[in-house]
Amino acid sequence: MLVVMKQSATDDEIGRVVDTIETMGYEARPIPGRQRTAVGLVGNDGRVDSARLEGLPGVLEVIAVSHPYKQVSREWKADDTIVTLDNGTRIGGAEIVIMAGPCAVESEEQIVGVAHTLRRMGATILRGGAFKPRTSPYSFQGLGEEGLRYLARAREETGLAIITEAIDAEGVEVVGEYADIIQIGARNMQNYPLLRRAGRYGKPVMLKRGMSATIKELLLAAEYLLAEGNSRVILCERGVRSFDTHTRNLLDLTAIPVVQSLSHLPIIADPSHGTGLRSKVTPMARAAVAAGADGLMIEVHPEPDHALSDGAQSLYPEQFEELMRQIAVIGQALDRKILSLPAMASP
Amino acid sequence: MLVVMKQSATDDEIGRVVDTIETMGYEARPIPGRQRTAVGLVGNDGRVDSARLEGLPGVLEVIAVSHPYKQVSREWKADDTIVTLDNGTRIGGAEIVIMAGPCAVESEEQIVGVAHTLRRMGATILRGGAFKPRTSPYSFQGLGEEGLRYLARAREETGLAIITEAIDAEGVEVVGEYADIIQIGARNMQNYPLLRRAGRYGKPVMLKRGMSATIKELLLAAEYLLAEGNSRVILCERGVRSFDTHTRNLLDLTAIPVVQSLSHLPIIADPSHGTGLRSKVTPMARAAVAAGADGLMIEVHPEPDHALSDGAQSLYPEQFEELMRQIAVIGQALDRKILSLPAMASP
Amino acid sequence: MLVVMKQSATDDEIGRVVDTIETMGYEARPIPGRQRTAVGLVGNDGRVDSARLEGLPGVLEVIAVSHPYKQVSREWKADDTIVTLDNGTRIGGAEIVIMAGPCAVESEEQIVGVAHTLRRMGATILRGGAFKPRTSPYSFQGLGEEGLRYLARAREETGLAIITEAIDAEGVEVVGEYADIIQIGARNMQNYPLLRRAGRYGKPVMLKRGMSATIKELLLAAEYLLAEGNSRVILCERGVRSFDTHTRNLLDLTAIPVVQSLSHLPIIADPSHGTGLRSKVTPMARAAVAAGADGLMIEVHPEPDHALSDGAQSLYPEQFEELMRQIAVIGQALDRKILSLPAMASP
Amino acid sequence: MLVVMKQSATDDEIGRVVDTIETMGYEARPIPGRQRTAVGLVGNDGRVDSARLEGLPGVLEVIAVSHPYKQVSREWKADDTIVTLDNGTRIGGAEIVIMAGPCAVESEEQIVGVAHTLRRMGATILRGGAFKPRTSPYSFQGLGEEGLRYLARAREETGLAIITEAIDAEGVEVVGEYADIIQIGARNMQNYPLLRRAGRYGKPVMLKRGMSATIKELLLAAEYLLAEGNSRVILCERGVRSFDTHTRNLLDLTAIPVVQSLSHLPIIADPSHGTGLRSKVTPMARAAVAAGADGLMIEVHPEPDHALSDGAQSLYPEQFEELMRQIAVIGQALDRKILSLPAMASP
Repeated sequence: MLVVMKQSATDDEIGRVVDTIETMGYEARPIPGRQRTAVGLVGNDGRVDSARLEGLPGVLEVIAVSHPYKQVSREWKADDTIVTLDNGTRIGGAEIVIMAGPCAVESEEQIVGVAHTLRRMGATILRGGAFKPRTSPYSFQGLGEEGLRYLARAREETGLAIITEAIDAEGVEVVGEYADIIQIGARNMQNYPLLRRAGRYGKPVMLKRGMSATIKELLLAAEYLLAEGNSRVILCERGVRSFDTHTRNLLDLTAIPVVQSLSHLPIIADPSHGTGLRSKVTPMARAAVAAGADGLMIEVHPEPDHALSDGAQSLYPEQFEELMRQIAVIGQALDRKILSLPAMASP
Repeated sequence: MLVVMKQSATDDEIGRVVDTIETMGYEARPIPGRQRTAVGLVGNDGRVDSARLEGLPGVLEVIAVSHPYKQVSREWKADDTIVTLDNGTRIGGAEIVIMAGPCAVESEEQIVGVAHTLRRMGATILRGGAFKPRTSPYSFQGLGEEGLRYLARAREETGLAIITEAIDAEGVEVVGEYADIIQIGARNMQNYPLLRRAGRYGKPVMLKRGMSATIKELLLAAEYLLAEGNSRVILCERGVRSFDTHTRNLLDLTAIPVVQSLSHLPIIADPSHGTGLRSKVTPMARAAVAAGADGLMIEVHPEPDHALSDGAQSLYPEQFEELMRQIAVIGQALDRKILSLPAMASP
Repeated sequence: MLVVMKQSATDDEIGRVVDTIETMGYEARPIPGRQRTAVGLVGNDGRVDSARLEGLPGVLEVIAVSHPYKQVSREWKADDTIVTLDNGTRIGGAEIVIMAGPCAVESEEQIVGVAHTLRRMGATILRGGAFKPRTSPYSFQGLGEEGLRYLARAREETGLAIITEAIDAEGVEVVGEYADIIQIGARNMQNYPLLRRAGRYGKPVMLKRGMSATIKELLLAAEYLLAEGNSRVILCERGVRSFDTHTRNLLDLTAIPVVQSLSHLPIIADPSHGTGLRSKVTPMARAAVAAGADGLMIEVHPEPDHALSDGAQSLYPEQFEELMRQIAVIGQALDRKILSLPAMASP
Repeated sequence: MLVVMKQSATDDEIGRVVDTIETMGYEARPIPGRQRTAVGLVGNDGRVDSARLEGLPGVLEVIAVSHPYKQVSREWKADDTIVTLDNGTRIGGAEIVIMAGPCAVESEEQIVGVAHTLRRMGATILRGGAFKPRTSPYSFQGLGEEGLRYLARAREETGLAIITEAIDAEGVEVVGEYADIIQIGARNMQNYPLLRRAGRYGKPVMLKRGMSATIKELLLAAEYLLAEGNSRVILCERGVRSFDTHTRNLLDLTAIPVVQSLSHLPIIADPSHGTGLRSKVTPMARAAVAAGADGLMIEVHPEPDHALSDGAQSLYPEQFEELMRQIAVIGQALDRKILSLPAMASP
């Protein structure tokens, strides 16, 4: 951490900064420059609260040099983390992993039917919301545990792994009983009680980037999971808020190589929520793979026109199939293949 | 809701939009224009999911005309809501309400001491966090229920009402036992289980605007509280995320008159979190009152240099006192006075 | 255009809206709904100023239904525009066009040398700034007309076409004498005198999206060029401003399919400025092609460590060569090839 | 400037950074820390291009410590700059300066008539656009030099000073002949040829903050004016782009105290463009004064319903009069009065 002093800072003011740093238990190292003095804080273990220094007289600004996260950092663990599921799916390795399914579980027929289709087309993980966080209290909120049972039934029939969302700390136990991966949604990225519980629960967790979260904040949120002992964490870019309303969100694909350089955790992209419009999902799914994503989460609905939520961003099954073909070609440019399920008796 | 068709839309495509609207149970009204046709959806009760229409062939865009919130709307209730507390404080009326105190409760001495100071200087509500949502898992997370007891002790001694934050649904019960107002923080604005529980609990709730929440989303989050039967809701502008890092957040004071025209709920401003820098708190507190805020939430710490969190944005008590003097003058321009506690024996 | 009335709007207020619309020379069509009335304005030719209606009593909001741009719209011209250059390069067709070169022209040796390298690796257009708009008045501002002469010399030797920036209306004539494509930079996207002059000059123009321009504003800026009779216009996505400082800009690749659905003009991406960091250029260049861009503009410098501007985002020539190989593979997924220069005697 | 190395950086990589800094002509000072090494660059005169260092192997990030602007900085000149006009108006001193008038000059009657009204109500500077930068090429673009003559006539009759916009470098001469203050609009904040010309011309310049300009960029743009020898510069906050469409722009009032701490230049606010909605102009004008603005620019139109541009954000004259009354009260809280014109025979 570097405390930059004003040009007009007096020796007394610099001395007070030095004293404060030492009182906090760290070493202070003044660095005189041509324009101004800066004071380095040595020994920062990620716990230093810059606020205490920022407010001191004569201080121009405080600059963080060490990064506040640890276990998620590639400097902590150099090798890529690979998250392995019961059905053999490996996320974060050389292969591209496809998660697909409807926004919400609507009925047993719907979810089991689409699971068969997706299995045939090459997905290895089935998505489907049972607990839906909705902006309006009057919108459809999901089938709850009933939906989870339908998902389990789809897994049983197809061998697909299941990813579905928990929206509160209590929900972690319920969802965890059925899901292979517990999803934490964008609105809950900084729901710390939920993160702690998911961290302690131990099943793989997919953490979506918050609507206006910086990459540093995303990594700090993941740090909550790792700090509880759970390192089976997958990150997900799903679009951030921006000033243009042509799309619901602005899919920030640069986050993919940025996260990969800072962290060892796998990162996938969700172009369905990331754009909010069906006709933009396919190009952005292709782009995410080309940018180096470890996988995709794609909304596919057998009848998007009749979906109970987010129908406009769901692909028709035939569009999904065509996308899979295109991704396979793009993967070649990066020496990556689409992961297919290991030999498994299709029921 | 207005479904705008492409210029090239065929009669069949328009017909399909009309059919879909009617299947959804609403009335469709085609409006031919010079350039293109639009189809109005009549009878929208706030529950229509535009996604289903957006994805239909020939549709250019879907425009929401009716507002998706109801009970929070000034069209639902024309008169200002006034939230009254046990100590006589009325929020949302002609007077300006001042909430003040440290970011976090650190000890009984600290909170009781500062409460006496603030009471003398004119605050009527004491703030202080017992459960702190922190970006890093390694930062100080608050004293928990112990902190709540210290707050209660401060109330007992000074007559100030208490506002403090609940960070999850379970926490509502614990916090609710001690607080006069339950605060829901920016990171939890869309934590729906928390909102529902706080709505059902029945005590006054102060809901902070999320980091990148639109005003519509803020009002929809408040709708969750009102939909559970709790209309004692106060909104709080506390800065939104922006592209400039000179301040931690961008305090959006225009939100104050905008909310006041759309909703009957009171709205206050938090310039401490809204700027993140002590030297900017006083000017922005003055500005918030001038913009018409129903009150302020201000961080004041007896010794900001030694605060355990957010010291850099806490005012020194003497700065707070000077701010109170300035606000009193500004209030005159709007025919508003600072609310002072009704006759009460100071202990 | 749709004028949405408040629920409480009186008949007089609705009547005044109708009268105002008619005074403006358009047709007014009231649309009563269950919650509120809206008034449609029929006959909008893109010239209606909504401000006049927004301010009338009883008006809740004014919603633009027709799009304010015309000639750039795909509704005006359904077929893709293809911009053809003297050296045979066609931008906007089935092939992917590669523009490459250093940020700034620094010397004759530098630009001619790198041109030969790029020609060999498969670029067809050479970029290089002679007039540089720099944030600080104390930074290197470019070689001016001398730089243009060096570019012309590079074209002569290699057959590459030249793209370089004009930063003011006078500059259009100077740059136009040497360049095959006149570039208008992000900071000048709404420099209307410059747009008009470039529109009248008649040479192909590449218009970069402004730092915080919506896609609608980008298209309206292009409309200035077409309105002056110049339809040889190429658009360029180069990153928008966002809240995260991990990258200089947020490359908005979704803009590519969005522009392609709204407009017939070709659109390319500039991942060098769009990310600002060399290690992110290659993944985002791949992603742009996968998203459907008609081409790329890539900064390549023979010795990035010694570049006079933007060295950190310039690829080493060998990185560029590897990128070309990857793009060729990705193009296959979209049935596109990289454009190579038509048979031309290499000097 | 501080070059932060990766934890894994080798001694060779650190050495290369040191060498590069020394080759650039500065002093390098390595600072070993517990986690990583940083290398300080000493002697930065604001001209160092960080790009060259950012791209070196082993570098994590480059942090600017010295500020890239100089003459605009309060560290360069501690005392407030006061800009004095021919009619005695002083901007940047103890008094609050009011600029008011219509968005565009529409006719001689209009501008002279409103000037008399505004003079009577207490304004000292008349605004009115003769050259209008408009988003659409089909909107009204202003009366040009004819409009300037009408403004001069209004000055002659009322004694008000004139502020009006120049939209290109050539325009500086034309506008400069008539105006007391040359305005440079938000879209042109980084139009460097325009800034240079306005800097050399020598008349007072008001520079508006760009739509998505950081405060640092605003100050750097002002540096272009001062670098040409013109220190009579007034800054103007007029709202930045944000994600919420409830208002056209997000008026960033915190910019006022931030600029005042970083620079000696006066800063005013434009709540008319800053909100885009008449009903929000008055509260935000009050707030700007309370935040410490040196003045206001307010759009007032005698008949907003018939304005040729931006009518919806123009106050009615009686609203302006009431605003003046409120501002006078608010000023008392900061010991500031509204500047009134020195004794002058009203014609």
